Amino acid sequence: MRLVRYSTEGGTRSGVVVTVDEVDRVVDLGPAALTDLVAAGGDALDGAVARADITHPELSSVQLEAPVRPGKILCLGYNYRGHVPDGVDPTADDPEFPDVFVKTPNTLRGPADAVVVPTVAADVDYEGEIAVVIGRRAKDIDEATALSHVAGYTILNDVSDRSWQRRQSQWAMGKCFDGFAPLGPWLVTPDEAGDPQDMLVEVVRDGVVTVSQSTATTIFSVAYVVSYLSRVMTLEPGDVISTGTPQKLPDAQAAHRPLRDGDAVTVRISRLGELTTTFIGGPA
Amino acid sequence: MRLVRYSTEGGTRSGVVVTVDEVDRVVDLGPAALTDLVAAGGDALDGAVARADITHPELSSVQLEAPVRPGKILCLGYNYRGHVPDGVDPTADDPEFPDVFVKTPNTLRGPADAVVVPTVAADVDYEGEIAVVIGRRAKDIDEATALSHVAGYTILNDVSDRSWQRRQSQWAMGKCFDGFAPLGPWLVTPDEAGDPQDMLVEVVRDGVVTVSQSTATTIFSVAYVVSYLSRVMTLEPGDVISTGTPQKLPDAQAAHRPLRDGDAVTVRISRLGELTTTFIGGPA
Repeated sequence: MRLVRYSTEGGTRSGVVVTVDEVDRVVDLGPAALTDLVAAGGDALDGAVARADITHPELSSVQLEAPVRPGKILCLGYNYRGHVPDGVDPTADDPEFPDVFVKTPNTLRGPADAVVVPTVAADVDYEGEIAVVIGRRAKDIDEATALSHVAGYTILNDVSDRSWQRRQSQWAMGKCFDGFAPLGPWLVTPDEAGDPQDMLVEVVRDGVVTVSQSTATTIFSVAYVVSYLSRVMTLEPGDVISTGTPQKLPDAQAAHRPLRDGDAVTVRISRLGELTTTFIGGPA
Repeated sequence: MRLVRYSTEGGTRSGVVVTVDEVDRVVDLGPAALTDLVAAGGDALDGAVARADITHPELSSVQLEAPVRPGKILCLGYNYRGHVPDGVDPTADDPEFPDVFVKTPNTLRGPADAVVVPTVAADVDYEGEIAVVIGRRAKDIDEATALSHVAGYTILNDVSDRSWQRRQSQWAMGKCFDGFAPLGPWLVTPDEAGDPQDMLVEVVRDGVVTVSQSTATTIFSVAYVVSYLSRVMTLEPGDVISTGTPQKLPDAQAAHRPLRDGDAVTVRISRLGELTTTFIGGPA
């Protein structure tokens, strides 16, 4: 199921996206948070899907918001293996532990929001990532049960300013500009998302595919990462874990230029859909 | 003024601490957050102080909670100069920019809470710091006006596990164990806190002073740091900025051993009072 949060005059509401006669429509699920709806079980959701007809508003007519409002946004650094020549052990250079950093709540934006390029940011860049949304509280859970704590998956663009990121040892300043975490467009439940280690992550910038890599090449699986984080911190419903970005393709690396006013970046991931972010403003 | 949050059967309430006949007592201010009370101005607070008498509960009889529930806890790495020999420019080795990292909301604890040493943490350590509490939203503010956005000051023990902190380049895992940010005991308003660049920060562990250094030796002042952070992120009321820890005294560095069950650490800071944290549990 694809679950959304959307704006109405009476406040933000939840909905389920159902395709009726080839048109995506939103069936309202009330004001409760998506993680509460998922935790309550499938009956109410199944009922909403069964009710769907052409009287429900078209998805394209509603203003989507971020599917959750996470208490924590936890992100991974290096997590995808690069190209490994035949005959070389692909795991030979793997780091022993995930490299984890935090994005603050001011970074969150919905799928319809543009990102304002800060005037002080000289080198804004994108990172297209699978975002895991926690559904049930998790502390000290093992890898075998970790995925049962996941409410679903969505897409996060881990926008970063490289110039601020590299000023000091810790990356927070480059990662935490207002609006640097567009999230969405929806929460895809695990039954529909399928195997998180078999998803293709792609990024399209200005019509060019700049990233294209399968999660089969990650070093740390979603289950491992959820378990690992839970050894340190209690994960709460709505928390987001962004699972790291694949390397850019060589041509895209060579052609790197900072994001600027008018650029658009689309992150598309198997079965999760796509998240397009427009960038506006920036240095004069 | 010293402002507290404290537990009652009806929920958490705010109060002001007033000394009556040499005994600290708490005058209730209702359920509103401390930052809202400070923003509303001094009249209500002054009235509460004027009302104080021996019918108000003794401070020692109430259960204090953390004075704020921050949306963000932003922390500085290296910010105090070490000992500089006579004739050497004390600013010669200063970093150009603050090194900023984030503690997640699960780290927050009140002044009465013990910190549970995680069984997986091999090298838990303390860092006694001045915590700046934002009172008014701040974005792109300059250094000259930065302090007008501060609601007051309190004490944070930036508890860290060095073994997890050093596993990878980013420190989040070592900094974000549940309970690793005891905060309190109260919010001291700027008029009573005085000059934040003229405070002595001391730490006492097991009866021994292990840290003793003035904020006159910081590299980045509170005003500078608030302004600097506001260039990147919108600071919201209740956000906490912890301003870095002084170096341990040489004898304490030499005698370092990880915190363990039964240890107590007191951070005391001029005009801010003291925060004592007990550590329990830990590896067998």
